[in-house]
Amino acid sequence: MLIPFEDKQIYVECHGEGAPIVVLNGIMMSTPSWKPFIPALSAQNTLILLDLLDQGQSSRMAEAYDITIQADVVKCVLDALKIDSTSLVGISYGASVAMNFALKYPRHVDKMVLFNCVPYTSPWLADIGKSWQLARVSPEAYYHATIPIIYSTDFYNQNLNWMSARKDFLTQHVFNNQDFLDAMDRLIDSAATHDVRDGLENIVAKTLIVGGNEDYLTPLPQQKYIYERIPGAKLVIIEGCGHAAMYEQPDVFTSLPVGFINCVSTVL
Amino acid sequence: MLIPFEDKQIYVECHGEGAPIVVLNGIMMSTPSWKPFIPALSAQNTLILLDLLDQGQSSRMAEAYDITIQADVVKCVLDALKIDSTSLVGISYGASVAMNFALKYPRHVDKMVLFNCVPYTSPWLADIGKSWQLARVSPEAYYHATIPIIYSTDFYNQNLNWMSARKDFLTQHVFNNQDFLDAMDRLIDSAATHDVRDGLENIVAKTLIVGGNEDYLTPLPQQKYIYERIPGAKLVIIEGCGHAAMYEQPDVFTSLPVGFINCVSTVL
Amino acid sequence: MLIPFEDKQIYVECHGEGAPIVVLNGIMMSTPSWKPFIPALSAQNTLILLDLLDQGQSSRMAEAYDITIQADVVKCVLDALKIDSTSLVGISYGASVAMNFALKYPRHVDKMVLFNCVPYTSPWLADIGKSWQLARVSPEAYYHATIPIIYSTDFYNQNLNWMSARKDFLTQHVFNNQDFLDAMDRLIDSAATHDVRDGLENIVAKTLIVGGNEDYLTPLPQQKYIYERIPGAKLVIIEGCGHAAMYEQPDVFTSLPVGFINCVSTVL
Amino acid sequence: MLIPFEDKQIYVECHGEGAPIVVLNGIMMSTPSWKPFIPALSAQNTLILLDLLDQGQSSRMAEAYDITIQADVVKCVLDALKIDSTSLVGISYGASVAMNFALKYPRHVDKMVLFNCVPYTSPWLADIGKSWQLARVSPEAYYHATIPIIYSTDFYNQNLNWMSARKDFLTQHVFNNQDFLDAMDRLIDSAATHDVRDGLENIVAKTLIVGGNEDYLTPLPQQKYIYERIPGAKLVIIEGCGHAAMYEQPDVFTSLPVGFINCVSTVL
Repeated sequence: MLIPFEDKQIYVECHGEGAPIVVLNGIMMSTPSWKPFIPALSAQNTLILLDLLDQGQSSRMAEAYDITIQADVVKCVLDALKIDSTSLVGISYGASVAMNFALKYPRHVDKMVLFNCVPYTSPWLADIGKSWQLARVSPEAYYHATIPIIYSTDFYNQNLNWMSARKDFLTQHVFNNQDFLDAMDRLIDSAATHDVRDGLENIVAKTLIVGGNEDYLTPLPQQKYIYERIPGAKLVIIEGCGHAAMYEQPDVFTSLPVGFINCVSTVL
Repeated sequence: MLIPFEDKQIYVECHGEGAPIVVLNGIMMSTPSWKPFIPALSAQNTLILLDLLDQGQSSRMAEAYDITIQADVVKCVLDALKIDSTSLVGISYGASVAMNFALKYPRHVDKMVLFNCVPYTSPWLADIGKSWQLARVSPEAYYHATIPIIYSTDFYNQNLNWMSARKDFLTQHVFNNQDFLDAMDRLIDSAATHDVRDGLENIVAKTLIVGGNEDYLTPLPQQKYIYERIPGAKLVIIEGCGHAAMYEQPDVFTSLPVGFINCVSTVL
Repeated sequence: MLIPFEDKQIYVECHGEGAPIVVLNGIMMSTPSWKPFIPALSAQNTLILLDLLDQGQSSRMAEAYDITIQADVVKCVLDALKIDSTSLVGISYGASVAMNFALKYPRHVDKMVLFNCVPYTSPWLADIGKSWQLARVSPEAYYHATIPIIYSTDFYNQNLNWMSARKDFLTQHVFNNQDFLDAMDRLIDSAATHDVRDGLENIVAKTLIVGGNEDYLTPLPQQKYIYERIPGAKLVIIEGCGHAAMYEQPDVFTSLPVGFINCVSTVL
Repeated sequence: MLIPFEDKQIYVECHGEGAPIVVLNGIMMSTPSWKPFIPALSAQNTLILLDLLDQGQSSRMAEAYDITIQADVVKCVLDALKIDSTSLVGISYGASVAMNFALKYPRHVDKMVLFNCVPYTSPWLADIGKSWQLARVSPEAYYHATIPIIYSTDFYNQNLNWMSARKDFLTQHVFNNQDFLDAMDRLIDSAATHDVRDGLENIVAKTLIVGGNEDYLTPLPQQKYIYERIPGAKLVIIEGCGHAAMYEQPDVFTSLPVGFINCVSTVL
């Protein structure tokens, strides 16, 4: 369905029944990315998938914007769906949106699971982002700039056929799409505005942070920084996993939020 | 309930409904240890708690035995409960029993979650075990030999009142109980017979291994050894967590098996 | 001085006196890169700096070549200097050359210190290499593709002025030099031929491997692979350090080889 | 030689020539422990070995004392040897003494190398210390309480003959010596007074911290705490190494201080 947000439209899908889980996409993702994950994530919950601004079937933006607008998008979607409080699962850029949401709308978030998150887009990460923007010269160059780095070395080397198919798909259908690349440029610029370092200690949502010890784009010290500051947050590390946890270890990827969000609390 | 095993009796409790999960105790534990965890672990599943031989309300053994007998105990309990196949959650000694069960009765185990596990009781670990046996001189000595090492430094330092209450309880009600200490001596000796190094590559159960980077008793390299050998096994590491994961981080402790065991598989 | 190698010339500098240490450059480096390090590295040793083929003041190659030719270059330099046996310090590409040398000329290497090394150029690393080759569209693009990734996030963020000066220098004097970029393309292709996985267990040189836990280009598991296979090798990890250890932590960078190479052995 | 300290005597040995290095023993050590290390550590330096109070051939104390008195011992030794400024190498307890010295006598310390150090003796570590004191019931019990935990699992398992010889020596000649055990009790009590958390940011000595990722007695987070607070400090981690770095990896153990202390500084 399409939900109006100011003069834009937000594409939203709901699957299943139960306590709501809103999944917030990584920067390159869109709702179809989640197709194989719907059974696992909607078995006990109402799974809400959505395209953020400049993603998938949601509206394109005309100019630069701050990442906090994406938190407003999420709030707008919740209002339209008449959901007062939800759990959030954010991946990378989506984890940034989740933390911004938790700071701006603290009453409306229950639990959060943050995959491969950063407290802010540091100059280092911003300069990696620029390397992506500078790689628009060819689909091949865009692939090489953006894709290998988000996989662990071992996964990439052990799944060459799968990676090759992915390269074909991305270079033939995505990285040659100027509308996609324009939107990516704006998304990258919006990511560069992300900075919740001063707010982490005020987050009240029960938070599970998930990192991979082979994440080269948002390395573990970033997640430890957040873990040490969000009160009561927990951190688990997936061994041998890179930035693209959902593709490398799909069952661990789904198990963690499904378990963390649905488990009743244990008091010793 | 009591279930006969040869000339012994095994104490068993069942809670909840759904696909079965058998929890296998750590060496010092018994079914009452799980009281606070029952709501979380039985919400979606039939939770089966049991005391292994020489634990809690199960029979004491007269002489030395091999840890594989505990796998037979588990099989006997499953038969009595008419359960053909189950998921197993094993903690430390219980994880050793789980792996032995998975090797001896591969058709009867579905998924396994192994907390703080070792592939064998190495001379190093056996000599730590002897330090426990040599500390029977006083409840105080037994506490100091066995308890601090199983907690992460930070948890221990930040929960001194809780640790102090635990010390009072253990020294006044447990570590002064000669029957308990005799049973512990035999359990430690049986642990020393644990060695599944040659069998790990044959385990077919879908396995999640959980370690803590502050586990000083069964340090992470042990779990990595197992992770690299059980086909398809996954490993997650709880940041800042010691050997006693269930007490240090109860919500992460329950989330992991509840999520892993109940999630439907995702195929990319 | 220039030393002939087949129909090529190899640029070599010697500094100081004592047992020889040959330093083997990373892929983008050349002898001037070592200027600030000469006092530390030549205080107790004859420090031999050299440009490998396609580096600095050594000859350019006309066509593709295997990395093993660089090992022959090193042997040729040793012969010309009448050095029978030497210690080797290799950085990244230079560490690959060092391992190839140790396999081909085992009698001529004493100790080795390998910084940020890989056992082979995996498809993952080769595809990162291609991202560099595809970034020749502008000096800016080349900088963004190659430089941020070789620094740890924290070092980069905390040394923005230094990085900015480096960016100016590299974009204005190096990455706009087509001769340099052509040579880089060939060096990258030669790196892709590196594979000593089958030979590591035959290396007899006393080896110290040095990694950084923030190395995103040659991550730690690569060094652990080598550490587990070279007999008697040791591995130390510099906390918080990226791929460019020499620039991030120059005093640790020099201390490790100077200490390891010059210390007399301790026998317990 | 014996150097008077108040009404006590301090045993001191000097070896070699050059800039001084004072080695500060771990809690169970004494000057003979260093015999095999003298060639490596004195090749370029005046190596000063000493027994702290209650160690080896230095005086026994009559009652409880604060660890800071050991810093005064070191200062007294330096005065007697007419050394104005020295480098310090401290192991565990000796690293605590070194940090206390650096805070009390900042003008008199040049570089410091701290192996397996802690910022304070936390309740957790103090309770491990008590387990040692409670294990005086037999040499066997003392061995099992104190020795396995200070070795990495792998080293212990792979050097069983060496460990066995060590056990024989310790149980027959050391752990049955009541004078030694009385002194150990006091040393453990003095260690419990160690706390430099508030002073670390004031330390001006150039400091290298060395940890082992298999150190179960002073685990890595302790060294990271110190690393993050001593200005300019560096941290290197020896892979696979436990608390007893000097016995597990003697050549790395000597290389690190010899390299760090003697290298001239590199300025980029």
